[in-house]
Amino acid sequence: MKITFIGSGNVAVHLSEELKSKGFEIIQIFSRTESNAKKLANILNTCYTNDLQKISDKADLYIISVSDDVLPRICKSKILKSKIKNKLVVHTSGSSDIDILKDLSSNYGIFYPLQTFSKQRKISFNEVPICIEANNKTNESILKNIANKISNKVLSISSEERKYIHIAAVFACNFTNYFYSIAEQLLNKKNIDFNILLPLINETTKKIKYFNPNDVQTGPAVRNDIKIIEKHLDALKKYPEYEKLYKLISKNITNDYIPTDKLVG
Amino acid sequence: MKITFIGSGNVAVHLSEELKSKGFEIIQIFSRTESNAKKLANILNTCYTNDLQKISDKADLYIISVSDDVLPRICKSKILKSKIKNKLVVHTSGSSDIDILKDLSSNYGIFYPLQTFSKQRKISFNEVPICIEANNKTNESILKNIANKISNKVLSISSEERKYIHIAAVFACNFTNYFYSIAEQLLNKKNIDFNILLPLINETTKKIKYFNPNDVQTGPAVRNDIKIIEKHLDALKKYPEYEKLYKLISKNITNDYIPTDKLVG
Repeated sequence: MKITFIGSGNVAVHLSEELKSKGFEIIQIFSRTESNAKKLANILNTCYTNDLQKISDKADLYIISVSDDVLPRICKSKILKSKIKNKLVVHTSGSSDIDILKDLSSNYGIFYPLQTFSKQRKISFNEVPICIEANNKTNESILKNIANKISNKVLSISSEERKYIHIAAVFACNFTNYFYSIAEQLLNKKNIDFNILLPLINETTKKIKYFNPNDVQTGPAVRNDIKIIEKHLDALKKYPEYEKLYKLISKNITNDYIPTDKLVG
Repeated sequence: MKITFIGSGNVAVHLSEELKSKGFEIIQIFSRTESNAKKLANILNTCYTNDLQKISDKADLYIISVSDDVLPRICKSKILKSKIKNKLVVHTSGSSDIDILKDLSSNYGIFYPLQTFSKQRKISFNEVPICIEANNKTNESILKNIANKISNKVLSISSEERKYIHIAAVFACNFTNYFYSIAEQLLNKKNIDFNILLPLINETTKKIKYFNPNDVQTGPAVRNDIKIIEKHLDALKKYPEYEKLYKLISKNITNDYIPTDKLVG
């Protein structure tokens, strides 16, 4: 099976490498930024272009992996449509509806790997949930077969479900990583190594394999320990953005335990 | 060495069990709530009381492990002072100053295990950083010797440093766990199993062992993907508290990348 990638961002990089390693033939990389297209094409030992007109019409599958800001424009491209010729086209976005693809081809679907991809990290796809959706059963089955080659967790997920999964992922991954950044910054102010927090962070994520997060909530807010909350807010006065977050989240956590007006601030 | 615990919460439970398993003699548990004192004393096969007057004066070390709301009152107790008789007394709080103990004894310090303790989970103390502080070098050395029996990560940490470590821990552990709760709730609305997020959560925490969190930030906000952010905020309208958090955190993350007024809302 011949595959062309439209896009050369983190998802495209990791997914194309993984598919190649499982025997799929990546015949071309398109990216508006030629240097990115070239870089990924070199890794995969394949062709590249930054010109939609030069996209090959020989692929069996077109994987569009671009930011959601760019996706609508790509999906309306008459040039791309003329290259795809009603062959199978998918996008890899968490939050864009499947119907965005319907003007490009009569065969379309979603291939959404639920993972955080950084250029610096190799990902083992084996455990990565792949969310599949397609405009008909045949295409769904084709996409599932492809996904099964790289992952043990292939799931049929509707666009509406996928959107909620993506929002949940933003909270559970992107926002938690931002909080690790905040923690790091606060520790740096006192010349303390961020690594001191790693056993704590490990335990926090280990717990939720066995318990509902809500049942194992710990910390000053859930204990309604207003003395500590006040002390922390006082220390955070120098960092008003962190202070605001601390106050808001503590309020949310304690909300079930004490009347909100009892909470400081 | 004979130890008395004042308090029977999560920290007291885990720490007393660990110390006992390493050969320390826990001679008594005090808790205002008799049933809690009794429960922990039964686990440790030792005595208990809910009456300060009945606290033994035979311990070599008194470990106060109570909430920060209660701690000031305990530290001012004349009765407790008369029992301690200037022997070594410590508290296990992340955010209370060492000086809070100075009226209780002339020998005092801090024994702060940096970990999240839940009743339901056994903790391996080996990797838990233990933050030690004491009113003099002799006491610091005694406390470090005790800590070294249960952990490989014993650190000298001042009260001011400890406060920042605790705030960092609230962000990196308590608040991230709250975000796992939010994620779980959002997924439950669509009957999707929370476990779908576990590979993503694992990877997020694995990454920060090797990279600064700030360098591996992913997601719509850091990509400045306003289309997705708008879509997510629209879906979160039904959950105004989550919407508010989503907006605030995305603004913080994008702050370095785009002018704030360009961000939705």
